[in-house]
Amino acid sequence: MYPKKELAQIVISACNQFEIDTVVISPGSRNAPLTVGFSNHKEIETLSVVDERCAAFFALGIAQQTQKPVAVLCTSGSALLNYYPAIAEAFYSNIPLVVISADRPKHLIDIGDGQTIRQENVFENHILFSANLIENEKFKTRNSQLIGEALQTAVSKQGPVHINVPFDEPLYETVSELKEYHFPHISMSSLDNSHIDYDNLSNIWNDAEKKMILVGVSYPDEELHQLIDLYADDDSVLIFTETTSNLHHNKAVNSIDQLIFSLDENQFENLKPEVLITFGGMIVSKRIKQFLRKYQPKHHWNIDAKKATNTFFCLSEFIQTQPVDFFKNFNNLVVKKESTYQDKWLTIRDKRREKHANFLAQTAHSDFKVFEQVLANLPNNCQIQISNSSIIRYAQLFSIDKSNTVFCNRGTSGIDGSTSTAVGAAFANKNQTVFITGDLSFFYDSNALWNKNIPSNFRIILINNSGGGIFKIIPGPKTTNATKYFETPHCLTAEHLCKMHNFEYLKAFSTETVAQQLKGFFDESVEINSAQTQKPKILEIFTPCKENDLILKEYFKYIK
Amino acid sequence: MYPKKELAQIVISACNQFEIDTVVISPGSRNAPLTVGFSNHKEIETLSVVDERCAAFFALGIAQQTQKPVAVLCTSGSALLNYYPAIAEAFYSNIPLVVISADRPKHLIDIGDGQTIRQENVFENHILFSANLIENEKFKTRNSQLIGEALQTAVSKQGPVHINVPFDEPLYETVSELKEYHFPHISMSSLDNSHIDYDNLSNIWNDAEKKMILVGVSYPDEELHQLIDLYADDDSVLIFTETTSNLHHNKAVNSIDQLIFSLDENQFENLKPEVLITFGGMIVSKRIKQFLRKYQPKHHWNIDAKKATNTFFCLSEFIQTQPVDFFKNFNNLVVKKESTYQDKWLTIRDKRREKHANFLAQTAHSDFKVFEQVLANLPNNCQIQISNSSIIRYAQLFSIDKSNTVFCNRGTSGIDGSTSTAVGAAFANKNQTVFITGDLSFFYDSNALWNKNIPSNFRIILINNSGGGIFKIIPGPKTTNATKYFETPHCLTAEHLCKMHNFEYLKAFSTETVAQQLKGFFDESVEINSAQTQKPKILEIFTPCKENDLILKEYFKYIK
Repeated sequence: MYPKKELAQIVISACNQFEIDTVVISPGSRNAPLTVGFSNHKEIETLSVVDERCAAFFALGIAQQTQKPVAVLCTSGSALLNYYPAIAEAFYSNIPLVVISADRPKHLIDIGDGQTIRQENVFENHILFSANLIENEKFKTRNSQLIGEALQTAVSKQGPVHINVPFDEPLYETVSELKEYHFPHISMSSLDNSHIDYDNLSNIWNDAEKKMILVGVSYPDEELHQLIDLYADDDSVLIFTETTSNLHHNKAVNSIDQLIFSLDENQFENLKPEVLITFGGMIVSKRIKQFLRKYQPKHHWNIDAKKATNTFFCLSEFIQTQPVDFFKNFNNLVVKKESTYQDKWLTIRDKRREKHANFLAQTAHSDFKVFEQVLANLPNNCQIQISNSSIIRYAQLFSIDKSNTVFCNRGTSGIDGSTSTAVGAAFANKNQTVFITGDLSFFYDSNALWNKNIPSNFRIILINNSGGGIFKIIPGPKTTNATKYFETPHCLTAEHLCKMHNFEYLKAFSTETVAQQLKGFFDESVEINSAQTQKPKILEIFTPCKENDLILKEYFKYIK
Repeated sequence: MYPKKELAQIVISACNQFEIDTVVISPGSRNAPLTVGFSNHKEIETLSVVDERCAAFFALGIAQQTQKPVAVLCTSGSALLNYYPAIAEAFYSNIPLVVISADRPKHLIDIGDGQTIRQENVFENHILFSANLIENEKFKTRNSQLIGEALQTAVSKQGPVHINVPFDEPLYETVSELKEYHFPHISMSSLDNSHIDYDNLSNIWNDAEKKMILVGVSYPDEELHQLIDLYADDDSVLIFTETTSNLHHNKAVNSIDQLIFSLDENQFENLKPEVLITFGGMIVSKRIKQFLRKYQPKHHWNIDAKKATNTFFCLSEFIQTQPVDFFKNFNNLVVKKESTYQDKWLTIRDKRREKHANFLAQTAHSDFKVFEQVLANLPNNCQIQISNSSIIRYAQLFSIDKSNTVFCNRGTSGIDGSTSTAVGAAFANKNQTVFITGDLSFFYDSNALWNKNIPSNFRIILINNSGGGIFKIIPGPKTTNATKYFETPHCLTAEHLCKMHNFEYLKAFSTETVAQQLKGFFDESVEINSAQTQKPKILEIFTPCKENDLILKEYFKYIK
């Protein structure tokens, strides 16, 4: 049973050829031809999510894990506007999210028909390509070209695209056959490395005594990992790996903020790099941004296949290629250099680590202490999803086991879709997914739990400090007499949502109860003889909102 | 305590001069200068709502009731994208929603800073004006002009505008004084009626024997009401008042779909008007659209102060003025005409009404039956908010007491913000607000209940048929083998949300229990000696999803 409409058949055939194997569908009538077609397609898995905001972040989470395009499909009208937060995240996080919206034909727009808005190019500011189709035999070639270009762009440029598909009535007519349409697979010229002046770059590099490599949001990549090992063994190089970099080395600094927070101006001056190489996505650490903006390296090289990011206002070289390709070539020319640079950093790092451990040993129940407990109890080889705001900032103070992968929506750093993204990632990843979140972010995206595709081994650690903890940590808000508009205090708990959405609910409110509840919390074993099937679980940890920021302040004093 | 930043002071001063007395604030740091300033302003009430999607619909609900601009304020990044569904609704429903977003200064966009997107003109497709400010003394005059134009546009053109305010750090510095800045109040030329050829129009009107007035979404308006009375007493005129028209007359047809559903082609041909006057917003009834598109009147005049709506593809005259001004002039020239036109319609109407009552007397528990019970039990002088999809369509089959006002988000007809809008309307209206909603719409906007400003007399009737009832009513979806992607069946109940958000929860599942639970449900009396303060209430009525559409089908057969 497939849609009779040729335009629907073309869209479906194209998605299949571009290897889209997952479509997240939100209910509607105008999108019926595509709903019917996708859900009957043998090679395409369709998933149903009602709230389009969650649907798009859920799809984003799947695409984040598979690194393949995932489509979302909705009806006409305001429905598709709810996709926008996830589209912006996909845009800045380079995730191939394919947005397909049904529309009314043009003559029915702005004449008083229901569920009708101006859909063409509506995501213009944050979309790589908008295919505005027209349902008319005459435009068949044009439509096919636009669809092909949209999908090609999503794949090759790794980002969001929008295909707007107007359908006139009747919408429900079906045929038994799905035709195949052929789309030219535009072979993308692979990025040419010939423009890169490796000799010059390596001369600069080899001459310098203070060199830094800073890695932002990245996928785990074994090949890249090995290429970077060379630099870890070079005394003149310091590697900073952000929590979301998924790159690990004993000689790298992984908990950036733990270290950077504690340095004084003299140390900064002394540790300023001459050459800085950056690659990967967004940098979380505000402190390292401040450091490098103030103490700018003479040379900053940013390696990226798509576009330059001049985060420190001193970019000297944009190296347009894949980091792995760059280092394959560059490593051949690199000579290790004697220097005290790495050692200076690592000496400080190790002192901080020691103090960090000492401080935590005597720290009372708080957001900070909870992090230590949770991270220490995580199973190996799990995937950690982290929500934004204070949670990702706390995470930056800790070392995370290298068998675990770490993800966070740092494209726009929004609190709006972290749970849905984690649910999507959990669905797509065979390893267990653990989502660590704050309360505002969790309740913001509460509809994320309204999803039938949540695996039973999915775990949520909800750190509930009764409001926006970040606004207690940053110094500004408490100097105002309007704190309630920043912190937005509340008395919500996840207990009722768990009942509503069939999660197992556990809670804790002290170091002892946290320890207790964490025991077995991540276990995946299903009792085969029990009638009760295993449910996903939430552990809600209540922390004292007044103490949290005091403890963090003390910490930063202590580790200096 | 006011922001030191002059740009923030200018925005606040402008909002105050343009009589914005309510600002809905979502938490964030970048918007701190405005949060601090607005919340300390004596003449401005500030309300805190975390989820920006809900915040914007909540503000929309307030503005819908006060018919005055209401502002929403959020931080930079994806936060403001969550406003978009409400902005589109405001755009098509002519509601003055003033969107104020904080932003980073331009040099920090797209260079890797957090919570940073391309905010300028981001709502371009559905916004009346975008003021892109620049924080710089040099641009003071330009900024003031843009702010003034934005607010003037929101007021005079009644629709959404966007003011994007970049702020550099520091964000939290304050001063003790709020300066006043003066904005030229552009006096809008009131709409000139001299271009309207009343003589010609009245000649056409007076000659015709079959005339129809069709009223879409409108605010209650006593003056207009009285002007329309003239036509109700004219045998050649039939008045159709949609459920959302807030216009009532004994000789008008108010439950349009009850009547139109039952007509055959002969009757349509016979009842086709020669002249059709339309005013007000969107028309809900699909049937009347189909009728008038097929049996087009020779003359269709659309009266609107802003723009023509050619809903039936036969618009002959766009009369650009306020309906009340048109009828003040036109009524002087109108001569009543002998005709059987009105009588023919009303005869059918009265038969349908009788049959309607007979049918309902013997109807089993179902969505349809529940509507009768709920509407019959509503208190006088309450405000009814109705959600979209099947709920508003059911409402169109009933007469609603004329002491009650009726509102529904028909601008985009979305299910995404009906509850939040109702909460805002309840907050702004001294009369009791009753919100009637379906389950998908209710759970979609579940965060609407996360709001500290819900009056205790607010009531929700949740008709829970375990999925999207509309997809059972319309014939298409059940012909497919993909019904679950349309109906999206679920087992959710509002019970847990009520506990979470401190609503009193009642439920019913039969005609008897509905009757029982409705007794006293709308009472507002607070027991003064009771420790328990009154809470807002939800009555969740479970209806049998399989029977609902069969009963509706029978109904349409029966009333023919």
